[in-house]
Amino acid sequence: MEFRLKANIKCSGSVSEVVSAPEITEFMRDCNEGLLKKGAPPGCGAEIVWWNVAGEKIELKLVSDRFVRAHDALLRLKNELGKFLGKHRIGIRGMEIEDYEIAMEWEAELRIKKLPFVKEIKQEEGRLKLFLDVDEFALEKRIPDRILRLLEDKKEAARWKGKKEHWELLFESNKKSFYFDKDPTEELIKRGWIKHAAGRGQWIYGPQSTKIFRTFERVLLDEVCKPLGYEEMIFPKFVTWDVWKRSGHAKGIFPEAYYVCTPKTRDPEFWEDVMDYYKVTNEIPVEMIMGKIENVGGMCYAQCPPFWVFPQGETIPDEILPIKVFDRSGTSYRYESGGLHGIERLDEFHRVEIVWIGKKEQVIEQSKQLQAKYRRIFDELLDIEWREAWVTPWFMAQEGKTGLAELKEVGTIDYEAVLPYNGKWLEFQNVSVNGDKYPKGFNVKLQSGAELWSGCSGVGLERWAAVFLAQKGFDTDKWPAKFRSAVGELPEVFRFL
Amino acid sequence: MEFRLKANIKCSGSVSEVVSAPEITEFMRDCNEGLLKKGAPPGCGAEIVWWNVAGEKIELKLVSDRFVRAHDALLRLKNELGKFLGKHRIGIRGMEIEDYEIAMEWEAELRIKKLPFVKEIKQEEGRLKLFLDVDEFALEKRIPDRILRLLEDKKEAARWKGKKEHWELLFESNKKSFYFDKDPTEELIKRGWIKHAAGRGQWIYGPQSTKIFRTFERVLLDEVCKPLGYEEMIFPKFVTWDVWKRSGHAKGIFPEAYYVCTPKTRDPEFWEDVMDYYKVTNEIPVEMIMGKIENVGGMCYAQCPPFWVFPQGETIPDEILPIKVFDRSGTSYRYESGGLHGIERLDEFHRVEIVWIGKKEQVIEQSKQLQAKYRRIFDELLDIEWREAWVTPWFMAQEGKTGLAELKEVGTIDYEAVLPYNGKWLEFQNVSVNGDKYPKGFNVKLQSGAELWSGCSGVGLERWAAVFLAQKGFDTDKWPAKFRSAVGELPEVFRFL
Repeated sequence: MEFRLKANIKCSGSVSEVVSAPEITEFMRDCNEGLLKKGAPPGCGAEIVWWNVAGEKIELKLVSDRFVRAHDALLRLKNELGKFLGKHRIGIRGMEIEDYEIAMEWEAELRIKKLPFVKEIKQEEGRLKLFLDVDEFALEKRIPDRILRLLEDKKEAARWKGKKEHWELLFESNKKSFYFDKDPTEELIKRGWIKHAAGRGQWIYGPQSTKIFRTFERVLLDEVCKPLGYEEMIFPKFVTWDVWKRSGHAKGIFPEAYYVCTPKTRDPEFWEDVMDYYKVTNEIPVEMIMGKIENVGGMCYAQCPPFWVFPQGETIPDEILPIKVFDRSGTSYRYESGGLHGIERLDEFHRVEIVWIGKKEQVIEQSKQLQAKYRRIFDELLDIEWREAWVTPWFMAQEGKTGLAELKEVGTIDYEAVLPYNGKWLEFQNVSVNGDKYPKGFNVKLQSGAELWSGCSGVGLERWAAVFLAQKGFDTDKWPAKFRSAVGELPEVFRFL
Repeated sequence: MEFRLKANIKCSGSVSEVVSAPEITEFMRDCNEGLLKKGAPPGCGAEIVWWNVAGEKIELKLVSDRFVRAHDALLRLKNELGKFLGKHRIGIRGMEIEDYEIAMEWEAELRIKKLPFVKEIKQEEGRLKLFLDVDEFALEKRIPDRILRLLEDKKEAARWKGKKEHWELLFESNKKSFYFDKDPTEELIKRGWIKHAAGRGQWIYGPQSTKIFRTFERVLLDEVCKPLGYEEMIFPKFVTWDVWKRSGHAKGIFPEAYYVCTPKTRDPEFWEDVMDYYKVTNEIPVEMIMGKIENVGGMCYAQCPPFWVFPQGETIPDEILPIKVFDRSGTSYRYESGGLHGIERLDEFHRVEIVWIGKKEQVIEQSKQLQAKYRRIFDELLDIEWREAWVTPWFMAQEGKTGLAELKEVGTIDYEAVLPYNGKWLEFQNVSVNGDKYPKGFNVKLQSGAELWSGCSGVGLERWAAVFLAQKGFDTDKWPAKFRSAVGELPEVFRFL
């Protein structure tokens, strides 16, 4: 890896008038021998290969390897030069980065077309050359280092590309009787139990389907949350960017997010032209609106990140662990691709999110307890056929990664059930041990100083319904007796001609 | 009101070569005497005041009063001219609107600065003159008529401006004992029962406050929804513009909406530069994002509009009326102005929405039954001091109107309770009879042809909590016994150092 930097240092007075040429030469030589080699293996580091003093300006060319990167060298040099010129009562006003080239070996197959803060990219014969467009402020923010890290990310992503997510069978239920062989969404529509809403991948649930959803929810509360001591909270549903920066979602959520924007101002005069346009045309002036709103975050995607603002920045006494809470206070959104399908894959969905926090062993133990409770529900109450698999942790997948976590206890169990109508397996919920990711991201500490871990489990009501109805159908006499009696009568409210 | 229009009609062949000047003159005279006067009082209507035939182009100047507006006259004329030229085997290719001026009397105080499809506005000496920028397509869409209607709206809005919303006391409860004199939000924060979330006007509700909220919800379900036969549904929470066009919210919601935008595409390559920028800077490139998303609607504001897509376009048999449903499936949003205050006035809130549909007398009767049930809750279960007032219907207020509905049975009852800590009255819920507004807007009909009405009632959980805690405080021993036992133990889950 080679770095070539050309910079101009602007001073508060004429350097050529005050400092003699030999003095400057000595300063540069000293830097080349000491400062710009410090910390690098012998023979490595940065070097000032050319300089020129022109009045108040010092022009410099720096070349380096990866050990003392040229921009680091420049920052070191600026500091040292400040001290040196200070003796002559000259200050440093600022720096101008005229050119900055970084060249490295690179695999030809992985084309890099565009990078932030890079004005030109040349890629040939196994080499990649970047021409950066950076200023002093960008160097101080270590932008060049982050560009190199981003390139490493892209290499890694390319290695993953095409590879499937990790999937490893952990458990398979017994075979069960199926009483339906059609697409349950179509049957729900035919019966008038659901109706497509105005948005994409969005449904309105009529009284019958809502009663089934609420029964699932009650089963979950009575069989899982209450016996295991989970208490209900209400998590926010609009999620600010700050939360997604801490949760890691800001790395990869963009193509799938439902973005939320707020008005630049609430002043009615500011909005008068939009309202006038609508009144005159009966059309929403979407482009005009886009100029009057600003993006502040998005709607709930994974359900637990916004919860973490509750303990954010706090220190927790060890004796209150494990903390066990759940939320069922609203909708989640994903901008799904072509794969939209009925209530199985949708944009707006309803989920109960279970979250626990504790020491490593407590978190793993809670996960096991939850798994046992879930098995009882699926086996005895819903009588469905399902399997459990160890997969890429959800938080890695949502950051665009595949593979497994570094620690083998950290990861996600997906619950999948077969849909008799198409023979495919549908993931209908998960249980995850997230390690220290969230306590770290949101700066939550334990009094004892021990490592704090957390876990979460998301139960999608639409997914439970999709699986249960696909396997057990709509003849309630065929439903497992306990669940049938838990649901009770299905209310008939609407009838259309 | 005076309309002056200059238009050019483009024909498929040279009119001057094929039609004689006297023939044209006769045609124009006939139109002036008949076609352009039809439907207007004697002496009124439109007139062609000048014309010129130049090859394939017919130039026209039209002047009119408000009876046959010049653009209507032009459309009539185009039609007639088509028949006339057809005899000479010439067709009409299109029209060009060169100038269109509309002048009218206007109050000097009401300044009009900008109007859609208007390139210039002159306002002097009690007169308003508009210079329109319209094409043939805009005339066919009746844009000039809608501009005039918009001006009427602005006049009406100006009359309302400064006037308060209608408010008329209907009922006052007995005086009750207050056991608290502080701001309940501050106490909730101090106790760690709520914590400010990452967004503006947004809170995270801890186990204790959530349990109080859920008890309110259960009281509402047990005391109101179940005994009156309301069944639960799940209404969408993302609302498309089409829904807000039908509900009327598109007329006035803009300054207060939480806007939802979806990605222009889900293609990860399209988003790569955004993700790269974030990874290199650790900052969200909001401006870059704004160019990659499109506004499709907003988050739930009033809760019932998106429900109406369920019966939209349907005909309902009379015998299933009244239809009674409710929804409690998610969050509502308002971009509140400076008035943000704790859990009393917030951006993200939780509400149970009750909706009923029936014939006029059924809808009014349901409203009365709800009012009776609510009184029992507030009086006996919560023991609060409140009053009820007849106010501007919420759907009018949300379209930016004040005053009352035309029909005296249509309107909103606001429930208000005094907050002892500041002596102010807070609206904490409402009951509304909405007349035929929603069935009409969403095209829902009754088999018998009778008029279909609807009503709705929104119960804000934060508002109930704000009122109850402000009056009854945090010493649960002082709470009404029935409610105290309904709440039970308040769970202690978190403790921070």
